[in-house]
Amino acid sequence: MSVLGAQAVIGTLLGSGVEVCFANPGTSEMHLVAELTARPEMRHVLCLFEGVASGAADGYGRMAEKPASALLHLGPGLANGLANLHNARRAGTPVVTLVGDHATFLTPFDPPLHSDIETMAAPVSAWVRRATSAAGAGRDTADAITAARSGGVATLVLPADVCWSGGGSPAVAAAPAAPGFDAGAVERAAKALRDDTDCLLFVGGPNMRPAGLRAAARIAAATGARLLGEKSPARHRRDPGVPDIARLPYPIDDAMARLRGHRHIVFAGARPPTAFFAYPGKPADLVPADTETHHLGMSPDALEHLADLVAPGLSAPAAEQTAGTGLPSGELTVAKAAAVVAHLLPEDAIVVDEAMTSSSALVAATAGGARHDWLCLTGGAIGMGMPVATGAAIACPDRTVLTLEADGSAMYTLQALWTQAREGLHAVTVVFNNSSYAILAGELDRVVPDAGRRRAGSFVDISGLDFVALAAGMGVPATRAHTAGDLYAQLSRALAEPGPHLIEAVVPPVTRL
Amino acid sequence: MSVLGAQAVIGTLLGSGVEVCFANPGTSEMHLVAELTARPEMRHVLCLFEGVASGAADGYGRMAEKPASALLHLGPGLANGLANLHNARRAGTPVVTLVGDHATFLTPFDPPLHSDIETMAAPVSAWVRRATSAAGAGRDTADAITAARSGGVATLVLPADVCWSGGGSPAVAAAPAAPGFDAGAVERAAKALRDDTDCLLFVGGPNMRPAGLRAAARIAAATGARLLGEKSPARHRRDPGVPDIARLPYPIDDAMARLRGHRHIVFAGARPPTAFFAYPGKPADLVPADTETHHLGMSPDALEHLADLVAPGLSAPAAEQTAGTGLPSGELTVAKAAAVVAHLLPEDAIVVDEAMTSSSALVAATAGGARHDWLCLTGGAIGMGMPVATGAAIACPDRTVLTLEADGSAMYTLQALWTQAREGLHAVTVVFNNSSYAILAGELDRVVPDAGRRRAGSFVDISGLDFVALAAGMGVPATRAHTAGDLYAQLSRALAEPGPHLIEAVVPPVTRL
Repeated sequence: MSVLGAQAVIGTLLGSGVEVCFANPGTSEMHLVAELTARPEMRHVLCLFEGVASGAADGYGRMAEKPASALLHLGPGLANGLANLHNARRAGTPVVTLVGDHATFLTPFDPPLHSDIETMAAPVSAWVRRATSAAGAGRDTADAITAARSGGVATLVLPADVCWSGGGSPAVAAAPAAPGFDAGAVERAAKALRDDTDCLLFVGGPNMRPAGLRAAARIAAATGARLLGEKSPARHRRDPGVPDIARLPYPIDDAMARLRGHRHIVFAGARPPTAFFAYPGKPADLVPADTETHHLGMSPDALEHLADLVAPGLSAPAAEQTAGTGLPSGELTVAKAAAVVAHLLPEDAIVVDEAMTSSSALVAATAGGARHDWLCLTGGAIGMGMPVATGAAIACPDRTVLTLEADGSAMYTLQALWTQAREGLHAVTVVFNNSSYAILAGELDRVVPDAGRRRAGSFVDISGLDFVALAAGMGVPATRAHTAGDLYAQLSRALAEPGPHLIEAVVPPVTRL
Repeated sequence: MSVLGAQAVIGTLLGSGVEVCFANPGTSEMHLVAELTARPEMRHVLCLFEGVASGAADGYGRMAEKPASALLHLGPGLANGLANLHNARRAGTPVVTLVGDHATFLTPFDPPLHSDIETMAAPVSAWVRRATSAAGAGRDTADAITAARSGGVATLVLPADVCWSGGGSPAVAAAPAAPGFDAGAVERAAKALRDDTDCLLFVGGPNMRPAGLRAAARIAAATGARLLGEKSPARHRRDPGVPDIARLPYPIDDAMARLRGHRHIVFAGARPPTAFFAYPGKPADLVPADTETHHLGMSPDALEHLADLVAPGLSAPAAEQTAGTGLPSGELTVAKAAAVVAHLLPEDAIVVDEAMTSSSALVAATAGGARHDWLCLTGGAIGMGMPVATGAAIACPDRTVLTLEADGSAMYTLQALWTQAREGLHAVTVVFNNSSYAILAGELDRVVPDAGRRRAGSFVDISGLDFVALAAGMGVPATRAHTAGDLYAQLSRALAEPGPHLIEAVVPPVTRL
């Protein structure tokens, strides 16, 4: 039976298990909206800004391990979603981006909202296509889903008349090929690990889960190799029964120190780390030139195989027991906040970490505590925290989502709070308000002459934000914590109550400049 | 004397009169920030989101008639600024976009924040270049300024090591060629106007100012031609001494009706209008097929010349005197709000109009009142209002800026309020809160079957926003108006006090669906 192009698109999504659509549509997407809302099995989630929709699709995909769709309005709508699609690309998250376009017969006249959508989409997309007919729209959608399932952003441009025309039919998405691995590379890595004690096993991607981390721990126990995790994994599953793994630090000198002094580095599920930013006189490639590297690729099977080669029959060692710290008191600092969060983190929480300069203390404090997933800022494009949390909460409605958010980053996509309120998501956000773009303070310190510090400090000082009022303005109950006791009481309550909450954790401003 | 690349860039900007920089920089821009802040004659304005910076540069350029610069951080920072650069492109606003990139030696390693900046920039830019050396950075900047001065977005990508290296020197930007006009086309238009009474003169761009509108009025008086202004001029200067001009309406049926029935249409400073969106069975090109068109180009001199040909010696007719309406009372509606705004609009105000479905009543009510500039949403990418107002206020510190804002659009770039507060700008925002994406209500009505209306209505309903709290959260004093009297009192006070204010004007929700 022939259906409208829009019906073929939505039917194909549903038939392939893509059952959530994060959307900010406009006039050119009305037929898609009509069909989205006609199918009760499709959950449609309105977002008040496209960066929320694309970030939510990233968070959903990381947790559901299948794509959501993000429905965006023309080139400018896509543009607003690009930064979080950049993060999704770096995370390898499956995302199907549907971009409505003008009808094919209008585009040649270059109407005001026309722009080159495919060109804008290319830098963040593994796959881009423009649908040209209702008859092909189902197949196009199925191909987009297949491309996304390989771990990436697939962008399908849908002209309005393709959607409103008849002659369409839903299609079925093919399963993507499972990633294989190079058995020879694994054997060479095994030889290096056996023959040499100066080895580092650098783990990332799909290995940042119990299976991969157990395999890594077996390898380390059997060979003496050191272990290091990638800096910002898309999803790090932390389980008190599995040895935790330290992650590559952000400051370049610290990162270089961690990678130095190994004859071999074996990369499993991770690319070799680069400098996050460049600095005069410092390298771009953080792997020392005299280190031999081994690349196992992205398949988790490669690391299992390596463990079976070098540690046959050996179980993973027990995780170290971390001594619980006492509850802190007094004026709030990031360290005290980290201790409070570690105390209160519910079992099987999803932690979304965009705490920036406040992050490392939080990561350290929560090791060995309750089982949880930790989702990182993979691509460095700030504004991912609350959107990713929104999508994660929709993917996992029975779990608590805790977003650890920096003040500067929070201001990028604050509109996510409105969606959290409307959808009644159990998402708790702690904003670390240090009134600063703290990450810039140290960088500016190094390049600004003394005389210019006061003026340059104007780029670091972002005081004047009241996150309690901002959250209230979007219907999210919020409180402010000045002391560790405040935070304990407020976070306890927020975690216990249904729906979203926000806590502004007031921490000392950064005063270096 | 050789200076750092960053110093060559900033020195070139200042030497060419580009003395404002709207910025959200990151680590890769630290040397530019150091130099920006070392030069007191460069006003640097921190924005908490790049869409604010790019929109502010648009607003500044429209009013100052020279470019500001927008300093953005890598591909994702540019991405966040693209939607408002799209509007600037459609406005023909001069804007110099400086995008910091990773150092040249880091880029080949594809670090997390790397993306293809030039490709992202292309769809919105008239000119794109990547600086490759400190020695060339001054020249590159000068060329960007020259390109922007021709009326467009010029994007210069500045790798970090180009900025931190020595060997640079400031350059001087060339003046762009003034746009000429085709005297033959003007003469043919004059003949049509003389010979035929069924003529429409369609005016836009630089002719939406007193000189152009007087010339148009002279032509109409002499020839009987009808007059129509483009739908969304970048800047419409309205003066009580100059006949006002009606603008092309948004609804396609109304627009078609206005353009129908003319043997000739003469376009002066405007392109022929297209449908804003396409609809099944309706045309893309709104100019009827049997109408002969004449194109005078973008130079205001063409329209002057035409007036001198067909109306030599004739003065522009006097503007119609509009009868002042009484002050409304009772529960607020858009029509009553428009009357209040018309009563209170200060002399020489700058009105930024992103009121969407509330806009036409406001335009009509303010005709014939105090002299003002009216700035429109040129490219249809919502989120321009408060950013453009921010830039306009910085360009014109002695004038009052009044932003007429829709609730949905306000949520796109609300962060502009923080910059308005920090900079102490006299910018007053009236948000028309109808709790709806009202513009979608009518569109959905036409495509959604009755049974689906309730669910589809979830895409129209954006209730739950408290703009008073949101403004307070960014340090902007705010009040809520439920009645015409409330609005009169609150707007009077806001206009009289220094600094920014926001008024949430509560108007009836759209209930069609």
